[in-house]
This record gives sequence, C-alpha cells and structure tokens, in this order.
Amino acid sequence: MRRFVVIGQRATASPDFSLNDVAGTSGRLDVLLRSIRAALMISHGLRTDAVVYLVLLGGHAAPRTVRIEGAIARFLRPDERSLATLVQKALAAPKTPGYPFVTLRRGITVFDGGLETVLADLGPSTFYWLDENGADIRNEALDLENPVFFLGDPQGFDEATLARLSELRAERICLGPVSVHTDDAITLLWNDSDRRSPPA
Amino acid sequence: MRRFVVIGQRATASPDFSLNDVAGTSGRLDVLLRSIRAALMISHGLRTDAVVYLVLLGGHAAPRTVRIEGAIARFLRPDERSLATLVQKALAAPKTPGYPFVTLRRGITVFDGGLETVLADLGPSTFYWLDENGADIRNEALDLENPVFFLGDPQGFDEATLARLSELRAERICLGPVSVHTDDAITLLWNDSDRRSPPA
Repeated sequence: MRRFVVIGQRATASPDFSLNDVAGTSGRLDVLLRSIRAALMISHGLRTDAVVYLVLLGGHAAPRTVRIEGAIARFLRPDERSLATLVQKALAAPKTPGYPFVTLRRGITVFDGGLETVLADLGPSTFYWLDENGADIRNEALDLENPVFFLGDPQGFDEATLARLSELRAERICLGPVSVHTDDAITLLWNDSDRRSPPA
Repeated sequence: MRRFVVIGQRATASPDFSLNDVAGTSGRLDVLLRSIRAALMISHGLRTDAVVYLVLLGGHAAPRTVRIEGAIARFLRPDERSLATLVQKALAAPKTPGYPFVTLRRGITVFDGGLETVLADLGPSTFYWLDENGADIRNEALDLENPVFFLGDPQGFDEATLARLSELRAERICLGPVSVHTDDAITLLWNDSDRRSPPA
C-alpha cells in the first residue's frame, strides 16, 4: 500500500468555492485535486493499492482532511472539474453529531482534523518527505510495503509540519534536479515504486 | 529544446465545447490540456526549452494543431479551467484569409493541419514514441539536443499515425511497468531528460 499525504496550507476545508474558478477561490485546492489523479489513476483504471489524503488547512472550517481509497472508491474521473465537484460534495456532506468524520460514499471520507488525525489513521509506517536537499530516490532503499509520502503545495511545508516530520524521523528524498509540481512528484514516486515492485 | 506532440484522436479542433464539462464535450481535450501543464510548467515558472503541440483530430474543423512555446508564452496557469479557456480562445481566434495559421498571442499559435503540418514545423529531429513494448528509457541513449516525443490520448495512436511514425524511424521507448496517463508520461520523460542534462 502506498499512501500520499498532500498538505494544502491555504486549501479550503469548506465547500464554498467556485467550480468555475477553483484555482482562484479555494486557496489552490486545484493543486490537491491534481494530486488525486496522479496518486490514484492509471491508463485504464484506479490503483487499488493507493490512498491519498488531502489535508486542508485553509478557511473557517479548517483543519479537515479528505481521504480517498483507491481500493474501494468508484467512478473517479481524472479531470479537475469532476474532482472538484467530488471534493466539494464531500466537504458539504452533513455530519452525524458526535462523529469526527463523514463518509460521502465508499472510499471517500472527510475527517475533522489535520496532520495529527492523518498520523493516527496511518498507524506504523515508513515516512518520507520530498525535499530538494534529500537523498536521490534512485539511490535509496524504499519501503515498498508501507510507505507514506508527505508533499506540500506551492508554498511548501509550514514550520510546524516540518518540525513534526523531523520528529517522526521522516526520510528526506529528492526526485531530480528540477523542482516540480506536487502532482508530478507523485507521478515520479509511483514510477520508482512501480519499477521496484511492479503490480501483479 | 524538448518538444512534445500529443495526438488527440477525437479532441475537438473547434471552440464549441463547454468550459463546465470539457471532458464530456470536447472529445477528451482535457487529456491534452493536462499535457500542456506537464510539458511546460515547473514549480515556479515555465520551462523555456520546451514546446508542446496538441494535434486535434476531432470535430468539423479538424485537423488543427495548437502549438505553445515555453520560451515566449506568458501568463500560463496550471489549472485545467485556465488552460481550457486559453485553448478555446485560440481555436476561436479569427483567421487571416490566405494564412494557414493564427497567433492568439506570443507563443500560442493554431495551425491548420495535423501531423504532417507538425512534422514540417519540427524539421530534422530525433523522434520517439511511447510504447509499452519499447526499450526502457533508463537504458537508452537519448538525444538531448533535439528530441521530439509523440504521445497518444487514452485511445493510443490510430493506424495511420503508427504507420507514419514507423516510416520516420521513430524510436519506441517505454517508461516503466505500468501504463500511465499522457501527462504522467510527459512528466517521466522530463525527469529522465532533466537528470541527464540539468537545466542551467
């Protein structure tokens, strides 16, 4: 199982953004939407051994986290408009009083809380985070059973997240000489992972 | 200079698609829009040594080709909505009678014609196309001066395109054990290219 945690420092945790201007009205949720595609979708279907978490730290409802599980989610489409609609619906889904999460439908869950909630959900894992000064992924041993990759948005990670990742002893890895978009980073992580452990 | 030619078998060559449902109304132009981002954009800017061609073979106005040049294009945004708006405007730009192309603005040009028009514009180059049975890119020598990569949409290449690529002696390369989306393929091509020849 590969899990990807994308932290959106300003990405809105409430559904009040415009589907016609996601990039301009959502604190750059568009970056996180594209990460869903990169983490879960391949040519003709979904990756069943992948989970993506979108940690939404922006807006009045923050922090909240959307979790999408490739093994059980259905009817995901790769275009940004469809993904924006899906996440908006999930963020608008009525909560059950007393429960800290809401399931929109199988495989798509919204949790109250941010990074700490994600860490509790992850359980014991090998943590990695993307850093230009990290070790080149092509030269590193990778946990292929239970890796968790932490990625930032265009603003990178905030100080509190960096401190927490250090505390977790997350390994710093680098993907090449050019700093790429978050979704491209996920694509590159998958490729190295696929090459070491091709899907059955 | 790296150039990417993405062939959309059904992608519309006319501007009459809905910005609110690009994936459903444009013959999957959304795939080609995401390829623009992957080909031209990195964390904090545009790749100035890249050009992407979108070959649009769908609809009544086909074939037409949109060319976007990273070296001179400005104000490109990575989200699909912005890219859809840009391409729609380019396809709607009034033609000058007698000219087989129209420039929307610097770096963004629409040509009448499809693959043959692109080949004429490319001039002498080393051609590659993505094929699951091709040689692994990590084991191959790559032309780093003047490579051109041909990619298909979710339907792959049509027979005529395959025949033409064979005639051109395009080299078949493979990116890994999993068949990925067109934009992911571009990301992987860039990463291998960046590693061999990091930008200055």
